[in-house]
Amino acid sequence: MKQTKYGDLVQYIENDIMTGILQPGHKLLSITRLSEHFAVSKNTVIRALHLLESRDKIEARPKSGFFVKHQVHREQPTAPSFHNIEPSRVLVPELFQDIMLRGSAFDIMPNDVLPPPHALMCKLHRNINKAIRTQATQRAMYYDEPLGLYALREELREHYSSAGVSISSTDVCITSGCQHALFLGLTATCVKGNNVVIESPGFYGVVQLLEELGLNAIELPSHSVSGVDINVLRETLDKYKITACVVSPAFATPSGSCMSEDNKKALIQLANKNDFAIIEDDIYGDLGFTSRPKPIKAFDTEERVILCSSFSKTLSRDLRIGWVMGARWQSKIKKLKLVSNLACSQAMQAALARFMQDGDYKRHLAYKRGTLLVQRDQLVQALNKYWKGELKFTIPNGGLTVWLELDSAINTGDLYNAAATQNIIIAPGALFSLAPNFTHFMRLSFNHPTLGNREKAIAKLSSMVFKNLIR
Amino acid sequence: MKQTKYGDLVQYIENDIMTGILQPGHKLLSITRLSEHFAVSKNTVIRALHLLESRDKIEARPKSGFFVKHQVHREQPTAPSFHNIEPSRVLVPELFQDIMLRGSAFDIMPNDVLPPPHALMCKLHRNINKAIRTQATQRAMYYDEPLGLYALREELREHYSSAGVSISSTDVCITSGCQHALFLGLTATCVKGNNVVIESPGFYGVVQLLEELGLNAIELPSHSVSGVDINVLRETLDKYKITACVVSPAFATPSGSCMSEDNKKALIQLANKNDFAIIEDDIYGDLGFTSRPKPIKAFDTEERVILCSSFSKTLSRDLRIGWVMGARWQSKIKKLKLVSNLACSQAMQAALARFMQDGDYKRHLAYKRGTLLVQRDQLVQALNKYWKGELKFTIPNGGLTVWLELDSAINTGDLYNAAATQNIIIAPGALFSLAPNFTHFMRLSFNHPTLGNREKAIAKLSSMVFKNLIR
Repeated sequence: MKQTKYGDLVQYIENDIMTGILQPGHKLLSITRLSEHFAVSKNTVIRALHLLESRDKIEARPKSGFFVKHQVHREQPTAPSFHNIEPSRVLVPELFQDIMLRGSAFDIMPNDVLPPPHALMCKLHRNINKAIRTQATQRAMYYDEPLGLYALREELREHYSSAGVSISSTDVCITSGCQHALFLGLTATCVKGNNVVIESPGFYGVVQLLEELGLNAIELPSHSVSGVDINVLRETLDKYKITACVVSPAFATPSGSCMSEDNKKALIQLANKNDFAIIEDDIYGDLGFTSRPKPIKAFDTEERVILCSSFSKTLSRDLRIGWVMGARWQSKIKKLKLVSNLACSQAMQAALARFMQDGDYKRHLAYKRGTLLVQRDQLVQALNKYWKGELKFTIPNGGLTVWLELDSAINTGDLYNAAATQNIIIAPGALFSLAPNFTHFMRLSFNHPTLGNREKAIAKLSSMVFKNLIR
Repeated sequence: MKQTKYGDLVQYIENDIMTGILQPGHKLLSITRLSEHFAVSKNTVIRALHLLESRDKIEARPKSGFFVKHQVHREQPTAPSFHNIEPSRVLVPELFQDIMLRGSAFDIMPNDVLPPPHALMCKLHRNINKAIRTQATQRAMYYDEPLGLYALREELREHYSSAGVSISSTDVCITSGCQHALFLGLTATCVKGNNVVIESPGFYGVVQLLEELGLNAIELPSHSVSGVDINVLRETLDKYKITACVVSPAFATPSGSCMSEDNKKALIQLANKNDFAIIEDDIYGDLGFTSRPKPIKAFDTEERVILCSSFSKTLSRDLRIGWVMGARWQSKIKKLKLVSNLACSQAMQAALARFMQDGDYKRHLAYKRGTLLVQRDQLVQALNKYWKGELKFTIPNGGLTVWLELDSAINTGDLYNAAATQNIIIAPGALFSLAPNFTHFMRLSFNHPTLGNREKAIAKLSSMVFKNLIR
């Protein structure tokens, strides 16, 4: 994945065209400005522009500059518009449990071969091995500090500082993953019967949590590009008392949407005015292809934003290490962590702290983002190539997933069942909302290369739909 | 720790004398019976008896046989007798959090050197390292099965089968340790405001859990040898509706007490009649020096016993792997695990499954029990040698801890503070009850050799008490 500056620039502009940031007819910056902006030589810029021209992506207009010529323009999936937004008790069908678990693998063919781990992952494994061996002679019978290993909390403080979040290491509490962090956040802020705002479509793990905790859900429509609709939230707050709002502002699953900074600030204002907690699921925050969005927590003025995340999407789910920044609820969260889980693995924490100290996590993220960008385009290209009928989908600028809207006659629950018989796994739209808003939607992931059998799986899915197999 | 059959037999009989199973004047079995019972030759028995005679433990009476001569007779600590047993809201002083955490290290000098890990622990570490590497190429982005790795659950099924518990592997749910198992068990069976019976003295992690879950505690006196008092429980059930009873029947901390099988059966009958759940903390069950007591779950007739345990006391806390057998609440517990924690590390589970499959866990337990028995005697000897004033303590036949009753004028909370300034850590009695029943008690652990600085620490503690430093 080592790239020249020249290749980076080409990819950057192509990405902006593909995701619609640069629209057809849009004029590019001048060669001088591009050279300054990307800190490359004018020659590099000219070489990149010529390649883009030869690929038919841009055109030179004499004495005017370069213009976006062509775009794989995609209609976005329909944003849900709910007529009745009101709190409702949560009941997740038993049937969903298995689908959710399979979907969480983010792999269209979980039984197919995977590429070998790259060198930095191997280094992390060596770190873990070393930490376990070192610790054996020292503290294997000892529990962790209540908040988690200081060295790791300190690294996370530093990491978030560069994303605009100013905290101290005592504001961080290490957890057994992001779901555990969300569990702690909701348990610390809400009691049974409280109303909690969630996004629709949104992460199903939150819906399951609300069910178990006996909390009412208020589903707000979430736009597939800009995320949760602040105006609808404002109206909802006039009608109902809400205790917490769970939101994924950066590359949310399933759509990959991102909230604007204005909306983040507006959300904080609403939380301050109406006295509710914001539980920010930041798990995809580090997976932005062109930039790392500022978390909502960066704009927090009254210690109301509980940020939740983990290493599960960036490194490996099997580390079982995440974190929560509990804001004004931090001491309650610390106590809840102790009684519900006692501690996290110190060896894992020590290995991860070392990985971050050595700069390996930053290097790994750069590599991961580049890989995911390539894989996103593979998935998009496969969809363009093989899908025969109506299809709208998002092309997110980060994260792991694409959200697809099929012909409204298609039931993706049936498609799930038909595909599963061929070892092809999709995440049907019904998982992402309590209401039947997304029965003709599905989520696909670009967490793996859409090549070989995974590419064929896209073609097979299309056949299933258009041979009327699943109507 | 490799021992001859001859040494085993000597140790076994010495242990029975020391713990009071064999009383002074008690006649030993005949040479023939001993030979049959322990499956050793008569010559081995005779050799063992002669050694015990030379150590002044037994005496030969002509034509009568061998009799127990001498016993380090210890008065047992006073069992609590409560006058008012009633449900009460739980409030754990904030001050206790830190003491509990330090105490959980089970080490009188947590900063002192430790012996190196033995070969089997190193083998486990190699298993873990291998599992992480193997998995990296396969399933690092995949979550665990909801109940946990099948291979590990199957090994646990087998393991418990030899302890008299007949279950299938689907009755086992892997957790992030025993505290997590207790959390899941209590959350699945109780709702806020319910009454829960706990032991006094008992494990403080349970008390913290009750507080967080808003449950009322009913503290039942627990005898330092025979555990919870079934008759008092029966009387309590006439007065109050209880939802669950949390009990440690095998080598409970702090006292090391064990329930008799009759009491276990009586408890089951009470649970059946009065419709409550039994939450069995079995974490020390595998650490019996002479036998593995049958869990209460072995006598369960109506799927009411939730067994909780982990590898934390037998292998290492840092594995963060435990288990719960959820009985009739199993599917609820599975769901709760998913939403609160999602999953456990598959690599750790695979490494542990392999460790059990290879017979290494059994070998390790044999080694561990032998080591703990030696260390228990080191601690007892140090107490006999250095303690200057009044002292009653338990000599448990398994587990990790000894429960000590000091002169009633001593406040062990003050002793904790005085000792901590010299890096000596005790667990003061106040931690083990909500009522001030045990302010002159403390818990010490024989999890580490009472040699070197740890032996000196016992002498220092005695000095602190008798120089009136902490009165």
